[in-house]
Amino acid sequence: MKKLVLLRHGESTWNQENRFTGWTDVDLTVKGIGEAKAAGQLLRSNGFNFDLAYTSVLKRAIRTLWLTLDEMDRMWTPIKLNWRLNERHYGALQGLNKAETARQYGDEQVLIWRRSYDTRPPEITTEDERYPGFDPRYSKMARNEIPLAESLKDTVERFLPYWNEIIAPQIRGGSNVIIVAHGNSLRALVKHLDQISDQDILNYNIPTGVPLIYELEENLKPIRNYYLGNAEQIEEAMHAVASQAKA
Amino acid sequence: MKKLVLLRHGESTWNQENRFTGWTDVDLTVKGIGEAKAAGQLLRSNGFNFDLAYTSVLKRAIRTLWLTLDEMDRMWTPIKLNWRLNERHYGALQGLNKAETARQYGDEQVLIWRRSYDTRPPEITTEDERYPGFDPRYSKMARNEIPLAESLKDTVERFLPYWNEIIAPQIRGGSNVIIVAHGNSLRALVKHLDQISDQDILNYNIPTGVPLIYELEENLKPIRNYYLGNAEQIEEAMHAVASQAKA
Repeated sequence: MKKLVLLRHGESTWNQENRFTGWTDVDLTVKGIGEAKAAGQLLRSNGFNFDLAYTSVLKRAIRTLWLTLDEMDRMWTPIKLNWRLNERHYGALQGLNKAETARQYGDEQVLIWRRSYDTRPPEITTEDERYPGFDPRYSKMARNEIPLAESLKDTVERFLPYWNEIIAPQIRGGSNVIIVAHGNSLRALVKHLDQISDQDILNYNIPTGVPLIYELEENLKPIRNYYLGNAEQIEEAMHAVASQAKA
Repeated sequence: MKKLVLLRHGESTWNQENRFTGWTDVDLTVKGIGEAKAAGQLLRSNGFNFDLAYTSVLKRAIRTLWLTLDEMDRMWTPIKLNWRLNERHYGALQGLNKAETARQYGDEQVLIWRRSYDTRPPEITTEDERYPGFDPRYSKMARNEIPLAESLKDTVERFLPYWNEIIAPQIRGGSNVIIVAHGNSLRALVKHLDQISDQDILNYNIPTGVPLIYELEENLKPIRNYYLGNAEQIEEAMHAVASQAKA
């Protein structure tokens, strides 16, 4: 049996302000730092060790991973960074909070975006300061790969090649892997692993800072999955993420 | 012209206690953390950016690199870790302070070790708890590669293949590289680059936390090198490392 650990980054400054973050490179809050450390302690006390760690190129995920590995006393674990693990790109919504979005686009439109798997938010232009092509970390991306806005479907489609070609072969080869990423890039993986429908995945929320353990067959078919930690903490984290999504 | 940046990790807890550290995985002191951050600020304000970072598998070097990249707001820089960048393995001296070493082995022997390029300190055994073979981070090393004690010559000889086969081709290919490592693994590189003799390299001390910039020709022959920072700080750091070596 193989094990795979998924971890959603701790609370970020824009989670706290309830803004669409996407590819904006905001940092963890003090609470988020605490969540990351707690995840590391939990993984350590449960005997987890990783041969390889994967994360996005966004600092809230990288810092969560660094803090986790530090708490595990495994700072020497090799880390692979890739933009394909980034959060969904929210296009022109990035930076807006819920109220601003509703004012600018109307409640009905916001509802459509929230309930749709394949509808993109409004795109940014290539002149917009939020255009990823201006950021050196994306300088090796082909221009047609750089998103101007993503639906969840787009996020799934750019994440899966990295899973299939890079991460999955490592797990099949026997490596113990942790993936530290974002609400929607982790949804992409969970959708794929558990064969969740386009509609159902929209209601699937992964709490921040709680390690999600997948036990997998040799061919990477899931046997079961569970969150690590005591039931009360997990309940609380689930509740927090659900009410954030509703707010 | 190519540029290469070398950085020796900040002060560690055993630097402070004046113990032979070697492969012991001690952490930075508060002062060491400050040195690493200062190095990052200096690199940032001088417009340095790196495509790739290399470091050892020891946390005092990894943490120095993390703090440096964090200060530069380039946490997404890919990091390659390798044991060949580790500090020299001090064998049975690891853990002893200067006074204990003199008492156990005599002043004369200590002087020989300090003045010799190719004399090894006493070896540990493969049953010793300090034997790297017990540590999971070295589990992929061939048994005959795992040191029981190293002379500076040994350190040079295990570092250079990694330089020649892994790092140098990246620099020749146009990557901007930083190497964060240790007093003796950086000596190994400086000896190679500047063609320093076996005797002279013993008197060459690299201060902690001060970026050392090498300007290189296309074929990686050095044009010149200099420390980054204001003259006073560098002077101070040089003095500190020289008096530590004498103490």
